[in-house]
Order: sequence, then structure tokens, then C-alpha cells
Amino acid sequence: MDINEFRTAAKTAIDEIADYHENVASKRVVSDVQPGYLRPLLPHSAPLDPEPFDAIRADIQDKIMPGITHWSSPGFMAFFPCSSSYPAAIAEMYSNAFNGAHFNWICSPAVTELETIVLDWVAQALGLPECYTSGGSTHGGGVLHGTASEAILTVMVGARDKYLTAKIAHLPDGEEKEEETWRLRSKLVALGSAGAHSSTKKAAQVLGVRFATVPVYEEDGFAMKGEHLAKTLDELKAKGLEPFYLTTTMGTTDVCAVDDFASIATTLQDRIAAGATEIFVHVDAAYAGSALLLPENQHLTQPFTHFHSFNFNPHKWMLTTFDCSATFVRSRADLITALSIKPPYLRNQFSDNELVTDYRDWQIPLGRRFRSLKLWFVLRSYGIRGLQAHIRNGVSLGESLEAKLRSRTDLFTVFTPARFALVSLRVNGKDEEDVNRRTEEVYERINASGEFYLTSTVVADKFAIRVGTGVAAVREEHVQKVFDALVREAERL
Amino acid sequence: MDINEFRTAAKTAIDEIADYHENVASKRVVSDVQPGYLRPLLPHSAPLDPEPFDAIRADIQDKIMPGITHWSSPGFMAFFPCSSSYPAAIAEMYSNAFNGAHFNWICSPAVTELETIVLDWVAQALGLPECYTSGGSTHGGGVLHGTASEAILTVMVGARDKYLTAKIAHLPDGEEKEEETWRLRSKLVALGSAGAHSSTKKAAQVLGVRFATVPVYEEDGFAMKGEHLAKTLDELKAKGLEPFYLTTTMGTTDVCAVDDFASIATTLQDRIAAGATEIFVHVDAAYAGSALLLPENQHLTQPFTHFHSFNFNPHKWMLTTFDCSATFVRSRADLITALSIKPPYLRNQFSDNELVTDYRDWQIPLGRRFRSLKLWFVLRSYGIRGLQAHIRNGVSLGESLEAKLRSRTDLFTVFTPARFALVSLRVNGKDEEDVNRRTEEVYERINASGEFYLTSTVVADKFAIRVGTGVAAVREEHVQKVFDALVREAERL
Repeated sequence: MDINEFRTAAKTAIDEIADYHENVASKRVVSDVQPGYLRPLLPHSAPLDPEPFDAIRADIQDKIMPGITHWSSPGFMAFFPCSSSYPAAIAEMYSNAFNGAHFNWICSPAVTELETIVLDWVAQALGLPECYTSGGSTHGGGVLHGTASEAILTVMVGARDKYLTAKIAHLPDGEEKEEETWRLRSKLVALGSAGAHSSTKKAAQVLGVRFATVPVYEEDGFAMKGEHLAKTLDELKAKGLEPFYLTTTMGTTDVCAVDDFASIATTLQDRIAAGATEIFVHVDAAYAGSALLLPENQHLTQPFTHFHSFNFNPHKWMLTTFDCSATFVRSRADLITALSIKPPYLRNQFSDNELVTDYRDWQIPLGRRFRSLKLWFVLRSYGIRGLQAHIRNGVSLGESLEAKLRSRTDLFTVFTPARFALVSLRVNGKDEEDVNRRTEEVYERINASGEFYLTSTVVADKFAIRVGTGVAAVREEHVQKVFDALVREAERL
Repeated sequence: MDINEFRTAAKTAIDEIADYHENVASKRVVSDVQPGYLRPLLPHSAPLDPEPFDAIRADIQDKIMPGITHWSSPGFMAFFPCSSSYPAAIAEMYSNAFNGAHFNWICSPAVTELETIVLDWVAQALGLPECYTSGGSTHGGGVLHGTASEAILTVMVGARDKYLTAKIAHLPDGEEKEEETWRLRSKLVALGSAGAHSSTKKAAQVLGVRFATVPVYEEDGFAMKGEHLAKTLDELKAKGLEPFYLTTTMGTTDVCAVDDFASIATTLQDRIAAGATEIFVHVDAAYAGSALLLPENQHLTQPFTHFHSFNFNPHKWMLTTFDCSATFVRSRADLITALSIKPPYLRNQFSDNELVTDYRDWQIPLGRRFRSLKLWFVLRSYGIRGLQAHIRNGVSLGESLEAKLRSRTDLFTVFTPARFALVSLRVNGKDEEDVNRRTEEVYERINASGEFYLTSTVVADKFAIRVGTGVAAVREEHVQKVFDALVREAERL
């Protein structure tokens, strides 16, 4: 493909992509292909000779499209949104043009510098405490990771090394110190609430440390409270274990619960005052963090001054193409100390003189995409007010659905009320088992229809349907339709 | 931006991107902005109201472009290439349109299935042993990670858990078994040669295990040999340590050395025969793996049947946009056992019935981009023969440069001969110190000119200039020019 063929082919692709977006609402939301559908449609090996673009393009429509689940469809109310937007799509085109591995500042200074600036803009827009900005008093700042899972693993590594360093600081260098470090490593425990995303458990599994759960209760709206954290910490300490890291959550995956940050902060401050080694606290706001764009939510961030890192995914609810996970730390040294490695082939005068940020030391991968470009395009193309309007749309549609469900208390129970564009509900029944069975049946039938895609969860043995209204294309008409479908299926039982 | 504005804006962007590619050869290769250049050019915060696309587009040219280092320039001979191509760029556009988190098969079946199929194509095209294909006898297969660093960390996690499981298999379940696991964890050592990429050391640092280096020697072309591995293993064992993982390298970062796979395999097989627990061996071919497309290199893969995983980056030398790192394992259970977690909100009938692959269990992040699309576009648009021609071009240009250097033995010493489109050289001098000093001076002067971008390394205290000829745009004229520049600067000293 030469440059002129590229101009033509790429513009054809743009039209096809625009056509796709125009028609996505009319497609079945979830793909209904069967496992293994694609292999018989493709050759057994790569072609020896070039194929024309038109042949590939035709295969996109005929062979790939049937296997796509349409995350931008207004019928997509499953999981959390994974959003995109036209400005983000165009930004990705430029990002690909400026393709490079970008592990050092000199690899393309704009890649590093735009990231620092745009993440400061974002921290400001979300009302994060100043300690999370690059110019803040504690030398913190933001970095773009790919996903929240990577963010959690990365900060957990920093947390582990910080904790170990603090615990052995009193020992003189030597064999005893080393032995004590290994002993402590075998006692480390990472914590999250029972509602924390599985990525915390997975990160602990990756690092080979224990994982413990802080219980949450329905009467607290499944939010972790300081008192339950304290109890769990006491139990772990009594077993001789070393809790070093905690994930707190703003918007849990199952029901969008928000942990009680204030009581958690108080609990941990009290323990430090009593001589305990500081536990590293990460705020996982992967989905709901975007809702901090709304001033009415920003009071939530006040306790974050006592925590150590914060992460949210603009690719979830902030119209930025996957992957784009914004991670902020109160002290960048926590990451750099744990993750920096300087082989000779990566050395350069700018890094050596510490004049620049080398984001490779803030993350696990060496190479990096130019991800800040799409965040910059999105922030500028929508403006803060445009993004707020988008978030408010999702929030109010969730509230609308909750009101509808409450109008049919004969059929439904609101399991957790609308928060951050997520409602969870159960279908009424004669006992818990019956409720679970009926709820699952309604859920399966709605998904089978293909008009909507919902997901479910099980919390404290209770099966519940989750309905998310955060996808940009969702309007009141779609909420009405999904409610009608819920009523229809519940009444049919 | 509405759909019609998107059509117009995206096509304008395509033309700008095409113009960029047409003119990239005439630009200074490495950006010469000063640290901090961008902040004064941008506002202090995100705009409240939307800005037009033309304003953003203008800023790309005026504010971002000066901070870009041009990795696709024919003057880019630094690091390793990070390549792209027109087909890959178009594939990325479709991939962004089908945006989603894609952590389960049902999230978009095409994303999973195309990945499995295309990676089988790639395994076949590289001549990897059948155990690395999805239908192979050992239940292996391929997965796309973002970078080789992530691949190495991921397989090291699998390696650790596999080793621990094997070591404690003889113990009955209970406290003693758990205590022994923790004891063993504190003794684990990951290994790589002195030439292995820093990502192995970093992965060990992340996992909190020891890292040890197997020495390599100039007389072996800096390749790791079985005998030196055996010696290192013996030393570690004598200290009561547990070597569990080894990175072998095809194409080291500093000088493109290729480890002696056959003797390494023999050494390890012998030790297993003598009762040792199996060590997991990963082949890091991040850059040079693409050269396995050439039949004359495929003999190298024969010993890989004794190893456990293989990784190369199509984004380096195979014309596929960053990020795209293809990882193959001989047994997918090695990854899944270590990395699988199944919370209720991710459950679905297809996964529960084990009908499908859920690649989230083959990697650290939960979410995934639709990366296989670009690999598919590249394989089909070039065909295997087209890709072979591209690789051969880089290889023969490296040989051409080596021949030129050998024509001026008065000025230069070839430090390591042309291999996989990389040559390293030193400027002659009266002693080692003088050689280092003169080589560094020539290196600094060439980079300062801005016409070429080279990198250097230090191997066994010897400073050497690395010249890579793998970027797709490099032609004989550029090799001649960089040689002329080397001669000019060396003669000026």
C-alpha cells in the first residue's frame, strides 16, 4: 500500500466507521456467534502474497462484524461502559502516526510533557487534592497506564517496597536486615473490601503476597467502613501478618458502592499515631471517578489527602478510547524507587541530569503509547461543561430507571439505588431462593432477545441484575424500553 | 463533533498524516526542544467550553510536532525500530471503532478468535515448534500482550507458581506445606544473561524475587552458553537458592547477540535427568524474532521445543503499530493456573462451560484492545513474501554498513558484526580509554547534527555505537550517508 492508496483506503475506512456508528443502534447488541465461528471462515495460514485492501475490508464486514459486541450501542447496559468518541478516534490516528516506543523523554518529548500537563488538568477538573498534581507539595503527579489492573499492580509494588523499607529502617545493613526483609515478605497482606474489584486480588496473586477481604454489609450500602477495616487489621496483626496495602473503592463493580473514605482515613491515622507502620491506600475509582467532574461529588476527594494513589479510567465513562487509565500518586518516589532500572542502552543526558520525567519508571512496561493525545482531544473538544453534561445524562437516566422500578414494587425490588448511572434490582419472589431464580430467569431472557445487554452479580448470595446507563448513546427512550422489557419478562414468569 | 464533522475532520487528519509520512525524511530526526518546552505553550487548565477541531489540529502542528522524535525517519537508527505501516494504521482505526474492554470471549468473540487464529499463522510463519500453536500437542498457544516487559513479567509469574507447585507436590496439604512454600519463595532466583534486556531484572524486582546474571564473553559474541549457565546454577544452588526461571535472548538489546539455545537446552535437560526441578525458560526475541520469517533463520527455533515460552514484538520490526507483543506458551495452563480469577460479575455461560478462551487469564490486565486486527491487516497486506523482503532489506543494509566499516580499518573497529540489521562499532584509539572517549565523541557529534539518531551501549566497559538499519524507510543512500558522517567525525578527531 503506497501513500496514495493509503489516502484513499483510510478515507474509505473513515466512511465505513462513520456508517457503523450511525447504524450501531439497529444491531443486535451482543454477538450471537457460536464459539469457534471464525476459524472455518479464514485460511489456515497467512497469505504468501499481498491481498488488496478491498478484500480485507470486505472481510471486516462479513467475518469480523458478526463477532462484535457493540459497546457503543444504546442497548449496551452491561459491565461498565467502555466509551469512545469522535475526537478520541481522531487523536488515536495522530498517535499512531507518531508511533514510537516512548520509554524516555527524548523518545518524543511531547509524549511525556503532554501527559504531565493533561493529567494536571484532569486532577484539577476532578477536584483531587493538590498533592496529586505534578507541581504539588508532595512531589506527586499523574501517569497514564493501560488499565486499572495495571495501575493497582504498579502501586502495590511501590507500596510493598515502601512498607518493607520502613519496617527495616532501624536495622543496620547486613545479613540480619536481609533475612528480616525476606521474613517480612512472607507475611505481607494486601487488602480490599469484599466489593473491591478482582484486580486487587489478582495483583496480590501476581506479587505472591496474601490477600484479605474487609467485609461489607448491605445496611452500609456495601461500603467499607473504618471500623470493619480496623477489625480486619487487628485479626491479621494477631496472626503475625503484615497488612501493607489497601484498595478503597469509589464505585464498586458489582453495585457502585462508595467506601467510607473519611472513617477509613481516621482509622488509619489513629493507628499510625499509635505507632503502626503506614499502610499504602489506593483509591480505585476506575469507573465512577469520571463523576468527580461534577462539583456535587467533589467533597468525596477530601480524605484522599491521607491516601497515596488514585486511579480512574477515562476509557470507561469519559469518552476516551480504551486503553487509558489515569493514575495519580501523592509521591512519585514511591513508584520510581520500586520500578527504576537504568541499563546503559537507555541512558541519555536528559535522564541522567534528572531534568525530565521518564514515565517508564512509573509503570511496568518499558514502552508507552502516546495516550495523552486522546485525553487532550477529548477535554478540548467537549470542554469540561460538555463532559459534565455527558456524565449528568447517565446519572439522571439511572435515576429515571430507579423511579420506574419503584413504581412497580409488585414486581421489583431496587437492590442498590441509582448511583453513578448504575442501578441493581431483583425480581420479587416468595423467598430468597425464589427471588434469585426469578431474577436470573428475567436476566437470561432479556439478554437472549439481543436488544439489550445486561450483566448480573451475586452479592452476599443475592443474585441481582445490574443496569448501567452510562453509555453515551443512551436516552430516556432506551431506559423506558429496558424497563418495559423487565416488566414484560417479570410478568411472564 | 457530530458524525458529519467527524467524517470531514477525520479525512483532514488522514491527509495531514499522509503529508507527515511524505515529509518525515526531511525533518530533524530527534526533537531538539528543551525540557519543559510545552507547559508555557498550553493553558493552565482544560477549557470549560468546546474548542473547534481546527484549533486542536493547528496545535498538533505548532506545539506537538516540534516535540516529536521521528521513529519512522530513515535517519532513525537508534534503539530498535518501532515500526508502523499504512495497513496497521487503518486497522487501528477499525479497532478503535469496535472499542470495548474485551476481557471475556463474549465481550466480542471476534477479538478473541482472530487473535488465536492470527497467532497460529504467526507461529507457523516463524517456524516455531508446533507446541506453541493453539492446536498443538501440549495445549499451548499465543496471546498478544502490549510489550515484551509485560510478557516477561507474565510468564515469570506462571514460572514461579509452576516451580513452587512442583517443589511442594510431595508434601501433604497443611501448615507444613504452606510454611515450605513461603520458605521457598524467599529463595527464588530469576536468571538472564548479562545481555538480557533489563525487563527481566525489572520483572524480578516487581515480583520481589532475586535476580542473577549469567556471564557472557566477547569471544562467544556475547551469547549465553550452557556451560556458563550451569556454573551459575551451581553457584546459586550452593547458596541454598532456587533458580526457577531463565530468560534466553535472540537478539540482545546492546549488540543483537543470540544465546546458544542448543547448549542451554542440553544443560537444562541434563539437570532434569539428574533430578533437578525444571526451570522455566523464556525466549526473548522482542526485536529479532521477526527475522524468523526468513527460512534461513528458522533452524534457531529447533531447541525451543525444550523451552516454555517465546515472545517477539511485531511492533518492533514487523510493521505493526506499537503496542503489539506476541507471546507464545507451550502450555497455556502455566499462565491460566497462575492468573485466573473468576468474580461473579465476569461469569458467563461460554466461559463457565470452558468453550472459549478468556485471554484475561493469560495476562495481567483485565481489559484488552483489539490488537490482532492490525496483525491480520499487516500479514494480508504484505503477504509473507512482502514481510520477508522488508526484513531482508534491513539485514542487507546492516551488512552493507559493516562492509563499509571494514573498508576503513584505519578509523573503525567492528565491535559486533551485522546481525539482524544491527552493527556496533568503535572508533580506533591508542588504548581502551582512548577508544571509549573517541567513540563517545563521534557518537555525540553525529546525534547533535540531527540528521541521524544513533544510540550507544557499554558492554564489558567498552563504549560502542549501535547502528540499526531496520526502519522500513532506510535505503542504501542513508547507510552511505551515515557512514560518511562517521568517517567525517572520526577523521575530525
